[in-house]
Amino acid sequence: MLTVLLAIGREILRGRVQDTNSWTLARQLTSLGHEVIRITSCDDDLVAIVREIRRAADDGAALVVTTGGLGPTDDDLTLQALAEATGCPLALHPEARDLVAARYAALFESGVVADVQLTAPREKMAWLPRGATALPNPVGTAPGVWLEVAGMIHVALPGVPAEMTAILEQAVLPSLVARAPGAVYAEQHIVTQASDESVVAPVLRGLGRELPEVFLKSRPTHFGSDVRMEVFVSTWASDQDAADTRLTRALLLLREALGEATSAGK
Amino acid sequence: MLTVLLAIGREILRGRVQDTNSWTLARQLTSLGHEVIRITSCDDDLVAIVREIRRAADDGAALVVTTGGLGPTDDDLTLQALAEATGCPLALHPEARDLVAARYAALFESGVVADVQLTAPREKMAWLPRGATALPNPVGTAPGVWLEVAGMIHVALPGVPAEMTAILEQAVLPSLVARAPGAVYAEQHIVTQASDESVVAPVLRGLGRELPEVFLKSRPTHFGSDVRMEVFVSTWASDQDAADTRLTRALLLLREALGEATSAGK
Repeated sequence: MLTVLLAIGREILRGRVQDTNSWTLARQLTSLGHEVIRITSCDDDLVAIVREIRRAADDGAALVVTTGGLGPTDDDLTLQALAEATGCPLALHPEARDLVAARYAALFESGVVADVQLTAPREKMAWLPRGATALPNPVGTAPGVWLEVAGMIHVALPGVPAEMTAILEQAVLPSLVARAPGAVYAEQHIVTQASDESVVAPVLRGLGRELPEVFLKSRPTHFGSDVRMEVFVSTWASDQDAADTRLTRALLLLREALGEATSAGK
Repeated sequence: MLTVLLAIGREILRGRVQDTNSWTLARQLTSLGHEVIRITSCDDDLVAIVREIRRAADDGAALVVTTGGLGPTDDDLTLQALAEATGCPLALHPEARDLVAARYAALFESGVVADVQLTAPREKMAWLPRGATALPNPVGTAPGVWLEVAGMIHVALPGVPAEMTAILEQAVLPSLVARAPGAVYAEQHIVTQASDESVVAPVLRGLGRELPEVFLKSRPTHFGSDVRMEVFVSTWASDQDAADTRLTRALLLLREALGEATSAGK
């Protein structure tokens, strides 16, 4: 599925926190055969979040995964934005309410919180867009959210990486495996003997014509002070064998044209 | 200036490479008083890059900084996209051509490249949008680009972090200091005694009403197995004193309301 990742949080825009969640998501979703077409970080601002969700739809995304903005504070606006962008108004979700209550009961047991009362800020985390499914959060208090509407899947995950990863692995990836397009992504790389990307360019162009399904990308790699051009070849295929065959052929042609550096300075 | 950062490269979308450039840029530009409103990674695709540059304009950005896509290979499309988005067609830029030629002369001297000829892939890096300024690249071969058009500044930097950083520090930041809006960004944080974000939420709401120019954001922080809520307070002000006064007041009120954890478990 064409996928857009959206990391929500002003701390990312100020350079205080690096968005590692999108990196994790990009790797995991790619390995399942989903194609990430854009990754965006935006502000804790209702208008900005709604705009980015709508842009994902404009770009033809079938899957939008957001991280951040699910907590109890007033700047946690993701679900309100999702409700506005999809036209599914927020409503108190009984299962989400039970999940939140159970988490506070556990935190009360272990002495982290002073009471188990479902105050307004706590209950806020259980107001989901109508039609959504709540995804249990085994680490924090805010459930993740899965919402299918108008041909798109919206997944909202917490911004704290340990919470994001836990919900991703327990609830999101298993569901997305079942929806994978039956495509396999494969990638290999070779360090060529070429030290000059401008020499690599025409080789990649010729190879791209011969193997249009293979994406080729070069970058310099360093052995101490010595530089060699590394070439990454990648493809989507119907199965692993088809992908491997294609990439093996690409690597063979690259080796013939540019040589392979077997160790530093070679 | 309202700023959009755009990291260009399929390797980011596949999760193979983490976009650290935008993190560096966000920190540096914030410290100069510029406000990053969005960070996006997009594909090595002409349509996608043009679309993102246009979206930056739609969002009111006065500054767009791109990283990646300046090299000699066919998938390096940033300048072509910038030309298309701004209506400034590509033309061979004499100074950029001299910069590229000088870099290859140096690389030939040190034995990295086999010849100094300005082949088509090498010359490609000197085709800039009309009206642009070439920014010397002391590390790699592709010059950076500075283009002012229609009330916006477009800065295009290479994707290799060492090249990006070198051009940023030597050519971009000095120019952007001169254009800074005279605003100072300041941020402080406090680890409160609160262990529960839902308790922090109403305090931040009240404080936000009292100090509307201060942005407040909480997140859990861990002392071993113990958790405390850390609160970040930030503001833009006309000078450092005004910013400090505002943040000192916010921290005082936070300390009164939530206490301060002076060490683990306190």
